[in-house]
Amino acid sequence: MTNAQSPALEVNNADGLTLARLDIGREERCGAPEAVFAQGKTPEDTLAITERLAEKQGHALVTRAGAEAMRLLRARWPDLREAAHAGLALVGTPPAVRDDGQHVAVAAAGTSDLPVAEEAVMTLASLGIGARIVADIGVAGLHRLLARLDDFRAASVVIAVAGMEGALPSVISGLVATPVIAVPTSVGYGAHLGGLTAMLGMLGSCSPGISVVNIDNGFGAAVAAARIINNAARLRRQEGTLP
Amino acid sequence: MTNAQSPALEVNNADGLTLARLDIGREERCGAPEAVFAQGKTPEDTLAITERLAEKQGHALVTRAGAEAMRLLRARWPDLREAAHAGLALVGTPPAVRDDGQHVAVAAAGTSDLPVAEEAVMTLASLGIGARIVADIGVAGLHRLLARLDDFRAASVVIAVAGMEGALPSVISGLVATPVIAVPTSVGYGAHLGGLTAMLGMLGSCSPGISVVNIDNGFGAAVAAARIINNAARLRRQEGTLP
Amino acid sequence: MTNAQSPALEVNNADGLTLARLDIGREERCGAPEAVFAQGKTPEDTLAITERLAEKQGHALVTRAGAEAMRLLRARWPDLREAAHAGLALVGTPPAVRDDGQHVAVAAAGTSDLPVAEEAVMTLASLGIGARIVADIGVAGLHRLLARLDDFRAASVVIAVAGMEGALPSVISGLVATPVIAVPTSVGYGAHLGGLTAMLGMLGSCSPGISVVNIDNGFGAAVAAARIINNAARLRRQEGTLP
Amino acid sequence: MTNAQSPALEVNNADGLTLARLDIGREERCGAPEAVFAQGKTPEDTLAITERLAEKQGHALVTRAGAEAMRLLRARWPDLREAAHAGLALVGTPPAVRDDGQHVAVAAAGTSDLPVAEEAVMTLASLGIGARIVADIGVAGLHRLLARLDDFRAASVVIAVAGMEGALPSVISGLVATPVIAVPTSVGYGAHLGGLTAMLGMLGSCSPGISVVNIDNGFGAAVAAARIINNAARLRRQEGTLP
Amino acid sequence: MTNAQSPALEVNNADGLTLARLDIGREERCGAPEAVFAQGKTPEDTLAITERLAEKQGHALVTRAGAEAMRLLRARWPDLREAAHAGLALVGTPPAVRDDGQHVAVAAAGTSDLPVAEEAVMTLASLGIGARIVADIGVAGLHRLLARLDDFRAASVVIAVAGMEGALPSVISGLVATPVIAVPTSVGYGAHLGGLTAMLGMLGSCSPGISVVNIDNGFGAAVAAARIINNAARLRRQEGTLP
Amino acid sequence: MTNAQSPALEVNNADGLTLARLDIGREERCGAPEAVFAQGKTPEDTLAITERLAEKQGHALVTRAGAEAMRLLRARWPDLREAAHAGLALVGTPPAVRDDGQHVAVAAAGTSDLPVAEEAVMTLASLGIGARIVADIGVAGLHRLLARLDDFRAASVVIAVAGMEGALPSVISGLVATPVIAVPTSVGYGAHLGGLTAMLGMLGSCSPGISVVNIDNGFGAAVAAARIINNAARLRRQEGTLP
Amino acid sequence: MTNAQSPALEVNNADGLTLARLDIGREERCGAPEAVFAQGKTPEDTLAITERLAEKQGHALVTRAGAEAMRLLRARWPDLREAAHAGLALVGTPPAVRDDGQHVAVAAAGTSDLPVAEEAVMTLASLGIGARIVADIGVAGLHRLLARLDDFRAASVVIAVAGMEGALPSVISGLVATPVIAVPTSVGYGAHLGGLTAMLGMLGSCSPGISVVNIDNGFGAAVAAARIINNAARLRRQEGTLP
Amino acid sequence: MTNAQSPALEVNNADGLTLARLDIGREERCGAPEAVFAQGKTPEDTLAITERLAEKQGHALVTRAGAEAMRLLRARWPDLREAAHAGLALVGTPPAVRDDGQHVAVAAAGTSDLPVAEEAVMTLASLGIGARIVADIGVAGLHRLLARLDDFRAASVVIAVAGMEGALPSVISGLVATPVIAVPTSVGYGAHLGGLTAMLGMLGSCSPGISVVNIDNGFGAAVAAARIINNAARLRRQEGTLP
Repeated sequence: MTNAQSPALEVNNADGLTLARLDIGREERCGAPEAVFAQGKTPEDTLAITERLAEKQGHALVTRAGAEAMRLLRARWPDLREAAHAGLALVGTPPAVRDDGQHVAVAAAGTSDLPVAEEAVMTLASLGIGARIVADIGVAGLHRLLARLDDFRAASVVIAVAGMEGALPSVISGLVATPVIAVPTSVGYGAHLGGLTAMLGMLGSCSPGISVVNIDNGFGAAVAAARIINNAARLRRQEGTLP
Repeated sequence: MTNAQSPALEVNNADGLTLARLDIGREERCGAPEAVFAQGKTPEDTLAITERLAEKQGHALVTRAGAEAMRLLRARWPDLREAAHAGLALVGTPPAVRDDGQHVAVAAAGTSDLPVAEEAVMTLASLGIGARIVADIGVAGLHRLLARLDDFRAASVVIAVAGMEGALPSVISGLVATPVIAVPTSVGYGAHLGGLTAMLGMLGSCSPGISVVNIDNGFGAAVAAARIINNAARLRRQEGTLP
Repeated sequence: MTNAQSPALEVNNADGLTLARLDIGREERCGAPEAVFAQGKTPEDTLAITERLAEKQGHALVTRAGAEAMRLLRARWPDLREAAHAGLALVGTPPAVRDDGQHVAVAAAGTSDLPVAEEAVMTLASLGIGARIVADIGVAGLHRLLARLDDFRAASVVIAVAGMEGALPSVISGLVATPVIAVPTSVGYGAHLGGLTAMLGMLGSCSPGISVVNIDNGFGAAVAAARIINNAARLRRQEGTLP
Repeated sequence: MTNAQSPALEVNNADGLTLARLDIGREERCGAPEAVFAQGKTPEDTLAITERLAEKQGHALVTRAGAEAMRLLRARWPDLREAAHAGLALVGTPPAVRDDGQHVAVAAAGTSDLPVAEEAVMTLASLGIGARIVADIGVAGLHRLLARLDDFRAASVVIAVAGMEGALPSVISGLVATPVIAVPTSVGYGAHLGGLTAMLGMLGSCSPGISVVNIDNGFGAAVAAARIINNAARLRRQEGTLP
Repeated sequence: MTNAQSPALEVNNADGLTLARLDIGREERCGAPEAVFAQGKTPEDTLAITERLAEKQGHALVTRAGAEAMRLLRARWPDLREAAHAGLALVGTPPAVRDDGQHVAVAAAGTSDLPVAEEAVMTLASLGIGARIVADIGVAGLHRLLARLDDFRAASVVIAVAGMEGALPSVISGLVATPVIAVPTSVGYGAHLGGLTAMLGMLGSCSPGISVVNIDNGFGAAVAAARIINNAARLRRQEGTLP
Repeated sequence: MTNAQSPALEVNNADGLTLARLDIGREERCGAPEAVFAQGKTPEDTLAITERLAEKQGHALVTRAGAEAMRLLRARWPDLREAAHAGLALVGTPPAVRDDGQHVAVAAAGTSDLPVAEEAVMTLASLGIGARIVADIGVAGLHRLLARLDDFRAASVVIAVAGMEGALPSVISGLVATPVIAVPTSVGYGAHLGGLTAMLGMLGSCSPGISVVNIDNGFGAAVAAARIINNAARLRRQEGTLP
Repeated sequence: MTNAQSPALEVNNADGLTLARLDIGREERCGAPEAVFAQGKTPEDTLAITERLAEKQGHALVTRAGAEAMRLLRARWPDLREAAHAGLALVGTPPAVRDDGQHVAVAAAGTSDLPVAEEAVMTLASLGIGARIVADIGVAGLHRLLARLDDFRAASVVIAVAGMEGALPSVISGLVATPVIAVPTSVGYGAHLGGLTAMLGMLGSCSPGISVVNIDNGFGAAVAAARIINNAARLRRQEGTLP
Repeated sequence: MTNAQSPALEVNNADGLTLARLDIGREERCGAPEAVFAQGKTPEDTLAITERLAEKQGHALVTRAGAEAMRLLRARWPDLREAAHAGLALVGTPPAVRDDGQHVAVAAAGTSDLPVAEEAVMTLASLGIGARIVADIGVAGLHRLLARLDDFRAASVVIAVAGMEGALPSVISGLVATPVIAVPTSVGYGAHLGGLTAMLGMLGSCSPGISVVNIDNGFGAAVAAARIINNAARLRRQEGTLP
C-alpha cells in the first residue's frame, strides 16, 4: 500500500488549517467511498468537505447532519435526496442501481424504526444497490412477519432493524438462510437504555448467524451488506457471469 | 395488623442469639408461606431454620442451598424432593394439588433453562398448584413454539423462562391472552451479562402484558403466579363455585 | 394461526409507503387491542395511524405522544381524554367499565409518581376495567400506607408505582395477598439512575410475589393487570357466574 | 412453515421428561444444522442430545462443553476433533470441504486469541467450509498485518478476532474490501471488562462495513460467514457455474 | 500537623523492604485506631503487621482476612475474638465498653446479613462501644420491625444492614429520629448486582437522614457510628457530665 | 404507631383528587419536618402543597424546584429565602438557630460545588441549626485545606461536598475526628459519570468513618447532620445541661 | 509546605462570601498555573475569578465556559484567544513559546475531534509550549497516518485525540518511541457511550506506553505533556545546556 | 516502514501452526522490547515463546503468568527474578541500570498495592531504569505522604499506585511538578467495582497533569515512564551531555 495508490485529499479552512484528509482511494481499496460524518463538525465545515468529496466522486453521502447543516446542504444542492429524521443527505448523482439479481431486504420492527431503515436504503442507493423495506413486522404480531418470509429468502442480505428488546433478527434468522445484519435502534425507554438492551440482546441471540452493527447505524449495516453482495459479484465476474 | 395476628417465631442458635424470626403468619397474610433463603447462611443454620419451619407448617421449601446444606437436608429428610441444579429442596408433605381447573404452563426456551423451570414447578407444588413444563421451544426454531400454543391458552398463567436474548416471553405474549410472567436466566455469556440482557429485554418488550422477575428466580415467578390463581379462586369462593 | 385469523391492516403514507401494519386481531388473540406507540413517529404519522385504529376499533389509545402530536390529536378529537404529563391520549369511546367485582388499586408512592399512575388508570379505562388511585403513601411515612391495606385487599391487582428506592411494592406485597405489579418511575436523581435503581430493587425484592414492568410503564402494568382479571373472568364465564 | 416441513425431534431423559426438541429441519431452513450448546446442561444430557443429533445428521458440533462433558464425548467418540480450550467438539463425519473457490481468513490479534479463532475454524469445518488462521497480527506491530493483506483479499470473508481494545477489525476493514466479521475476545483485564470494551469498540468502529458477534463467539462468526458464502453459492448455482 | 504529632511506625519485611507505615497517631487524631486491611496482603505480612500494631496499641482489629491469615492469627493469639464469616479478628485486649448511656442498635434485614452485622458489633467492641443486634426484621414481614422500634429509639445510632432491595433503612428512618447508617450487603443475586442495587437504593432513599457506607462494610459503619457517639461525649465532657 | 399519633393531611386538587398526604407528624417522629420534593410535580401542585405545609408548620422547605415553580413561590412569598442554582426555597419563618454549641462545617471542594453546599446550609437553617461554608479547598491545593482544620474540629459534623474524583472527604476524615458526611456532586465530565465516580469513590474510601448521601443531595446530608446533633442534644437534655 | 510558600488568594462575591481561593502558588509548586474551570459557576463568578487570576498572573486560561460566560469574557478582553467549540478562552498575555527544541504533536483521528485538539494546543500556548496538529488521520485510512510518522518522532510528546473506537493511540504507540498521551473524545454514538468506549479501549490497549486522560480533556493532556517536557528541561538546566 | 526494518519472528507449535510472530524490531522502533503476555496462553506455549524471545534479546519479561507457567519458567531459568503475586517473571540478563541521573519513584497507597508497584519496578529493571518504592502512604494518614515529597521531586516520573478511591495521584500531583502516571489497583471491594472506581476517579481528577493506565497495569506504567525518561535522554544525547 503506497500513498500514490491511496491518496488523501486535504481540505483546508480559510485560515489554512487542514480540516480533513479525504480518503479518496477508499472506494477502490474497500469497495465503498468515504462518507461525511457530520456529528461534531460545524455546518460550514460539513458543507466544505461535502463539496470537495462530491466534486471528486460525483456524489457524496452525509450522515448525522444537524438541522443547520441540512439547511446549508439543501441550499447548495436543491435536488438532494434526504432522510431528514436520520440526518442523512445524498448529494450529486449516485451510480445506477445494479441489475445483477442481488438486493437487500430491510425489515423494520416498528413504524418508529423507519428512519434507520431509510438510512440503510439511501446508503445502499449511494452504492448502486437496490433495497426494499418491509415495515412494522415486530414480533408482538408474528403473523405479519410470517407472511413475508419470501421477501427475506429472495434477498442477498436481510438488514433487520429493531428497538425495544430487539427480537426481530433472532426470529428472522431462525426462519431463513439469508445473511442477517441486525441494527438495534434507540426506540424505547427505561430498561431499553437508549438502545443498548436491543444491541446486547442481538449479540447474545440464540439464533446463530446474526451479526450486529452500532445502535441506529443504518449506514454501517448498508456498507456491510454491500461487502456481502460484492463478494458474490467478484466471484461471478471471475466466472464471467457478470460483466 | 398486630403482632398477635402476625406472630414471628424466633429461632436461636446455641449461644442464644436470634438467628431468624420466622414469619409464620405470612401464609394467612400473603397467600404463600415463608421459604428458607439459604444463600449466605451456614448449612447448620439452614438446617435449624428449616426444621422449625417444617415443624410449624408441615413442610418447608429451601431455595439457593449449597451442596453442604443440601447434604444436611437430605440426611435429615431422606425423602425430600429436590431440584439439585437449582439448589432447591422441599421437605415434609406439601398440600395436595388443587383440583379447580387452574394450573401453570412453564415454558423453557432451551434445555439449559430447565433448572429454573423446575424451581418454579417445585415451588408451585409446595403451594398445591399444578404445573407443566414445555421444554426447548426457543425462538430460533419457531415451529416448536407455534405447535404448543394451546398449552399456553389452557393455563391460568404462563411462566416463560429464557436466557440469551430472552425473546421467548415477547413472542408468547403476542400469541395468547394468558398472563405471562417472564423469568430471565443466567444461561449465556459475554454480552449476555449474566442474565441482565435477557432481563432488560423482557422489561423493554414490545409485547405488552409481560411482567418480569429477577434472573433465575423461578421461585418468585411461582409465587407471583400463585397470587394470580388465588385471585380467581377468591372470586369463585365468593360465588360459591369453589369450596 | 393464519393471516385470515389475525389480519394486519396497512396504513400507507402519501408516497404509498407502508407506515404501519395494524394488528387488528390482537384484541381477540391477546385480550387487549393494539395501541399507538408515538415515540419516534412524526406527529402526522401518529395522527394517521390513530385515525385508522380508532376507525376500526371505535377507540384508540396513544402512548408517549409529544406536545405536537398531542395538539394534532386534540384538534381531531376535541373530547379526547388525556394524561398530558404522561403523553397519553384516549380517543373515541372505550368499552363501558365492567361490573363484575374486579378492579385495580393503583398505589403511588409520591405525588411526583402520579402521571405514571394515571397512565395505568387510563389504559385500564380503555379496556373497560375500573381502577382507584391511592396517592402519596411512600414508605417514609408508613402509617399512610398501613391505613389503606383494605383498599389493596379488595382489589384483584395492585399496581404499585414508585420512584427513588422503589420500596413500596416490597412493603405492600408483604402485607396483602393480592397480585402486585411493580412500576418503577424515573422520579429521583443521582444514584437513582433514571429509574434503574428502583427497577433493580423491585426485581431483587425480598418480598416474593412481585413482578415488574419497565420504568414509567403504567401502560404495560395495566395490560398485565387486565390479563390477570381476564383469567378470573374466563373461569367464571366457564362456570356461568359471568355472562 | 408447517411442522411437517420443520419437524422437531424430542429427546427424553430416563424419567420421560423432554430434555430437548432437536431442530432437525434447521439445516434445510437456515443453511446450517443445529449445534449442542452445552453450558448449563449436565454432562449426561449433553451426551444424550449429541448422540441423537449425530445419529440424525451424521455429525454434531458441541460448544461450551466443560471438562466432564468433554470426557464423556471423548469416551463415546474416541476420534472426535476438539478445541479443548474453547470447549468445542466435533463428533462424527462432517461434510467434505467444498471446492468452489470460497474460503474464510481468520485473523487473530494475539496468541491468546487463538482458541476463539480455532472455534471458528472448526465450526466452518463442520459446515464443509475451508479456513486459514493468520495468527498474532495485532495492531501494536502493524508491519505483521500489512504483510498479510493478500490473505484477506483472497478470502470471501475475514473473521477478525481480537481482545484488549479490539482495534484489529477496524484496521483490516480500512485496508481491504472483503466482508469483515469482528469477534471480540475476553483476553485482557481491568478496563477490558471481560471483553465488553473490545465489543463496544468494534461496534463503534470508524471503519464502516464491520459487523460484530458476541464475545468469544467464534461459532457464531463462522455461521454468519457461512451464510455469506452460501449467498454467492446460491447465485452461482442459479447461473449453473456451481453444481 | 507535624510528623512528631502523627508519627508513622514502619514495618519491614525480611528483605528490609517497608511493608507498612502504621498510622499510630490515628486514634488521637481521628478517634479510632488504625486497623489491618488484610485483602491483598500475604498471610505472613498480615501477621507481621498485626503483631506490631497490637504491640503498640494493646489490641488490633483485622478485616477481610482469608482462611490462611485467620489460621496464622489464631495460632498466634489462641484467644482472639473472630467473626469468621466476615474475615474479622480482634486480637489483644480492647478497651472496656463505655458506660455512658450511648450504644448502637444494629438491625439486620435477614439471617444472611448477620455476618456484616457482627463485623459492625466487633468493630464497636474494639472501640469500647456497646451494641445490640436486632436480627431478621426485613420489610417483607413488617410486624417484626414495628415491634422493635423502641430498640432503635433508645440507641444513639442505628446501623441498618440489608441486602436484596435494601429497603430496611428507609423504613426505619421514617419511623424514628435516631441517626441511621445504612450498610448494603452482597446478599442477593441477579438484579441485585452483588449489592450495588441495595447500595444505590439506600442512597436514593425517599426517607431523608440516611447516610450510606460501602457494601458489606460493617467496619466502616461502626467507625462512623463511633464518631457520632464521640461527638456527644465531647460535648458532655466539656459540660462535665462525662469524665 | 397509630394514625392518630402520625396523622396525614390530604391535599386535593380542583377535581377532588388527592395530590398529597402531608406527613405532618414527621417532625415529632423523626426530628425533621416533611419537605416538598418538587421534581415531577406541576408548578401549581408544588405551590398548593407548599401552602398547606407552611400553613401547618409555619414554614416549608421546597427542593428541586424548576424555574416556573420558583416563580410561583416567589410571587406568593416575596420574602422567601432561596438558593436558585439548587432549586431550593425556604418559605415562612423557620425556627431560630439553636444556641447550644453545636453547628455544622460545610466544606466545598470547588467553587462549582457551592450550590450543593448552600442547599445543605439552607436546609440546616430550616431546622434551626447553624452552619459555616469553607469554600474552594479541593485536594489539588492541599495547603488551603490544611489551614482550616480547626474549623472542622470545632464542628459537630462536617459535610464535605466534592465533585470530580471526590477525594475531599477522605482527606478530611483522615485529619480530624468529627463525623464526616460526604456529598458527591455532579460537577465534572466524562469519566465523572454525572457524579457516580465521586459517589463510588467516597463509598470506597480508604479513610473509615465517612458515610455518603446521594449525588448533589445537600438536603439529605443536612437532615443526617441534624440527627447527629439531635443525638447529643437528647442526651444533654436528659442530663439537664440543655433545656 | 507552609501557607506562606503556597498562598491562596480569596475571591469574594458582593455578599462577602468566599467564592474561590486561588492557588497562586501552583505554578511554582507544580509547573503550571491554576486555570478557571467554568462548569457549574455563574458567568459572573467566572468573570470575577478570571479577572483576579489574570491580574496576578498576567494571563488566565478558562475551560468549559458556556456561551454567556464566553460573552462576558469577550466583552472584558476583546482580544482574547478562544476555541469556542471547546468552551476555552485564554485572556491576557501568555509566556512566549520556548525555543528549546521541544514541542508537542497533536494527532486528531477525525475532523470532529479537532475542538479537543485545539483545547490542547491553546493550553500548551498558555504554558509557552509549541504544538502542531496533524488532523484527520484515523485508522480507517491508515496511509494518512503512515505518511506522518516523522512528525511524531520529532516531537517530545504525542497527544493522540480520537473518538469512536479510539484506536489511533494504539497504532501510533506501536510505530514510534515518543511518549503518547491518549485523549478519548465524545465523538460517536450508541455503543460509543459518550466516549467511555474510546476511553476504556485506550486504557486496555495492546500497545504499551500509552497513558490516558479524561474524555475530551485536551486541557489535562496538555498539562501532562508540559510536565514531560519540563522533566527534560530540568535536567538540561542542571547540565547547563538550557538557561 | 518496511518488513525488513521491523521483522517478525514466527514461533510455531509442534503441529507447525504459527503461535506467535515476535515483534523483535519493537525495541528499536518503540524504545522497549516486546514482552510475553501470558494470560490466555497455555503454560507450554508461554515457555516456548519466552525461550525464543530470550534467545533473541538476551532477556525476556513475562506478565500475567499463572502458577503453572511460573513453575515451567522457574524450572527452565532457576535464577529468574519474579514478582509472584503479580505473575511477573524476568528471565535472562536485562541491561544494566543506566547511570544518567533519571529514575522513577513508585508510590504505593497501601501495603496491598505493593505487588503492582513491584510489577512496575521489575519492568523498569528490564529496561535498565532504576526505581524506588515509597510504600503505604495513602491519603488517610497524610503526614506519611507529606514527609516524602522530596522523593517525588527528585524523580523524573512518579508512578502512583492506589486502590480504593484512588486519591493518591491527585494529592501528589497537587504537591510536586513531576509527571505523574496513575495506576489504579483492584484492591478494594463493593463500590470499588474491581478497580473501576479508582480508575475513573484518577481520570476525573481535579489535579491536572495526571495520566492513567489500566487497572493493576504496573507494566504499562513502567513502559510509559520509560518513554518519558527516553525523551530527556534523546535530547541530552543530541546535546552531547549523554553518551
